[in-house]
Amino acid sequence: MEPVKVGLLGLGTVGGGTLNVLVRNAAEIARRAGREIVVSHAAARDYDPARLEGIDRVEVSEDAFSVVDQPEVDIIVELIGGYSPARELVLKAIENGKHVVTANKALIALHGNEIFAAAQKKGVTVAFEAAVAGGIPIIKALREGLAANHIEWIAGIINGTGNFILTEMRNKGRDFADVLAEAQALGYAEADPTFDVEGIDAAHKLTILASLAFGIPLQFDNCFTEGIGKIEPQDVAYAEQLGYRIKHLGITRKTDEGIELRVHPTLIPERRLIANVDGVMNAVLVKGDAVGPTLYYGAGAGSLPTASAVVADIIDVTRTLTTDPGNRVPHLAFQPSELSDLPVLPIGDVETAYYLRMTAEDRPGVVAAVAGILGDLGISIEAMQQKEPAEGETEVPLVMLTHRVRERQMDDAIARIEALPSIRGHVTRIRVEHLS
Amino acid sequence: MEPVKVGLLGLGTVGGGTLNVLVRNAAEIARRAGREIVVSHAAARDYDPARLEGIDRVEVSEDAFSVVDQPEVDIIVELIGGYSPARELVLKAIENGKHVVTANKALIALHGNEIFAAAQKKGVTVAFEAAVAGGIPIIKALREGLAANHIEWIAGIINGTGNFILTEMRNKGRDFADVLAEAQALGYAEADPTFDVEGIDAAHKLTILASLAFGIPLQFDNCFTEGIGKIEPQDVAYAEQLGYRIKHLGITRKTDEGIELRVHPTLIPERRLIANVDGVMNAVLVKGDAVGPTLYYGAGAGSLPTASAVVADIIDVTRTLTTDPGNRVPHLAFQPSELSDLPVLPIGDVETAYYLRMTAEDRPGVVAAVAGILGDLGISIEAMQQKEPAEGETEVPLVMLTHRVRERQMDDAIARIEALPSIRGHVTRIRVEHLS
Repeated sequence: MEPVKVGLLGLGTVGGGTLNVLVRNAAEIARRAGREIVVSHAAARDYDPARLEGIDRVEVSEDAFSVVDQPEVDIIVELIGGYSPARELVLKAIENGKHVVTANKALIALHGNEIFAAAQKKGVTVAFEAAVAGGIPIIKALREGLAANHIEWIAGIINGTGNFILTEMRNKGRDFADVLAEAQALGYAEADPTFDVEGIDAAHKLTILASLAFGIPLQFDNCFTEGIGKIEPQDVAYAEQLGYRIKHLGITRKTDEGIELRVHPTLIPERRLIANVDGVMNAVLVKGDAVGPTLYYGAGAGSLPTASAVVADIIDVTRTLTTDPGNRVPHLAFQPSELSDLPVLPIGDVETAYYLRMTAEDRPGVVAAVAGILGDLGISIEAMQQKEPAEGETEVPLVMLTHRVRERQMDDAIARIEALPSIRGHVTRIRVEHLS
Repeated sequence: MEPVKVGLLGLGTVGGGTLNVLVRNAAEIARRAGREIVVSHAAARDYDPARLEGIDRVEVSEDAFSVVDQPEVDIIVELIGGYSPARELVLKAIENGKHVVTANKALIALHGNEIFAAAQKKGVTVAFEAAVAGGIPIIKALREGLAANHIEWIAGIINGTGNFILTEMRNKGRDFADVLAEAQALGYAEADPTFDVEGIDAAHKLTILASLAFGIPLQFDNCFTEGIGKIEPQDVAYAEQLGYRIKHLGITRKTDEGIELRVHPTLIPERRLIANVDGVMNAVLVKGDAVGPTLYYGAGAGSLPTASAVVADIIDVTRTLTTDPGNRVPHLAFQPSELSDLPVLPIGDVETAYYLRMTAEDRPGVVAAVAGILGDLGISIEAMQQKEPAEGETEVPLVMLTHRVRERQMDDAIARIEALPSIRGHVTRIRVEHLS
């Protein structure tokens, strides 16, 4: 059989990794796929041939559109990133009747609906395993492995930079800014770390996971996002004392009223396996009604792990070349005609438990005043700790855990607590999930 | 489109669960698969209709062969278990041109080569996701999700009963027999626990995983198996003091000389995520050359989790109904013509580190004698602890960790140590893996 021909857009970290994996594991891949897979064309401006095994057998062009227009290319692999020209390239490839593989989470989260509709019309596949959690085959697990289940919720550590920072804060008691600077020096964090630490990158990935789990259109704009920049070392330490770890989680849950879609720092019980996922590693916990909880763990980024997912997609697409398009796994797990219009809930409608920390005057009656406000609003307290004041201090940290309550209710409570004369400054609030 | 018709052999724990999942999640499954999936026929002797939603719409027969011969059935789901008549039923279904889904690990591990060859000849699929690690989609991950990788090794907790026993021994300091009796009372362990605690069930599953990972024919008979019955509470405690947990692992690894295929109790560093997989849960850690380590965690048994995998297979098979058989995912991940003849290594050729515990006379020179034997045989000691003797005792436990050494070498060392006059009884030996 003829080799499958791949046109690679981008020869950077992931593009270079993809070429390297396809070349070094060529024999093993052909033994699995039943035919050879070769990169025949690539597009890149700057690249280092010494780093790219087999690049001499690839026709490299500076013009990505010329690769997309190559008649002999079967599959276009988009690894340029960003919105434009990635979107135009992918749409052109589809128009040309080519299958597409991409690792571009931002593109899929924001333009996936348009792209999948175009692909559907042309009978081609757009595969995007590498867009979520790098090398972990979580999209395959959700779309196929768990296809028998009604998915109840997903909670994921889906940004390695954020997890590295939180892990270092916990292990070494360091503060956020300090660890961020180190992560930047190590190359784990970008010079502009906004996408990672503000949760935007995680929100892109969570948007995709939610659509796959619940059969809703992609709707990144409705994802609530809160970063980890305000987490203080004392919160990490108090959480620990209470038996919890703080993780930056993407959480999506189906309720009768709609879909929760939110990225924020979260206290989770330290005994949960996902609480022990440290450093730059990713993990996604999925709760299905039949299977119960399942967890998928691995490297969420990096050249070769991401390439692992890209190449798996290429092999998958190769296998579907003879499948009637109507019988392929649908892009968003559910048939395009069967998507649900269940709304994404505003964060005010979301119900979670809470960790609260505030600075109070060290005198009788303060705890009673705070507890009174919570009680008036129907918020039950699970635990409360008034810490010892430091030598000579007249203020003490007051830490509490509440039971589950709607966010809007908690906003109200916090406003009233902050208005108490005996409370100084703002109340720190971190959501708590038990993930059971 | 016509619904896909399933013939269900067996309405016990897994068969009943499969019917229940297909009925209760019918709408969601059809939204994913693009067509309805119905159980039209089933075979069972005894069953409780009250437990089986939708059983009134199924034609139930006592004769499983009559279901296999039903012309209108598209997919036969074998959930009877055991070797016979399961093997004959599956072969007959294939002969009749039907696709087959099975959860029968023993059947696949022992007769898979024959069954897959027959299926290949007929152009039908035999799917067996439920045969390994219950609801965890590990077979899909290995065959498809990690298809770009050269797999280096796999280490799995793939028997829930064994893991429950070891977890209880650790958490409560109880001994093996005591916990086993409780597990039997709770229904986690069979009246005859041999398959679970001796590692035979795990060896069935590991045999399948090894073939999928390395492209070798199934060869259960070459799997080395050691049970957990000889683990003592003191070993669990000493391992803990050294920073390790004891888990009953199935391990398969590719070396230049051959394939390691072994199930045995194993010390693993407590910081590894898999060391924290407790109770009846399963987890499989896979090391690929591109992706690095990935881990898959979930329920390894039970009615609904296993049904989750069975139904996922049914949906998968439904999707391949229009695929050219040559383009489907091969049964053993690699094309049948591309299997490797790399041999499975005898346990004597396997290299691991070791935990050794022995009872020594409490007098000078004993440690030197033991260390001398190890040194003579080129075995390096990583750590050694001579425990305090109990009040009035003249014997002390001597515990050590060695560096990696070939098993045959260690057998020799142990024989010489046991022959020392200052050593009482047998040396306890548990293999150590760092899983990095």
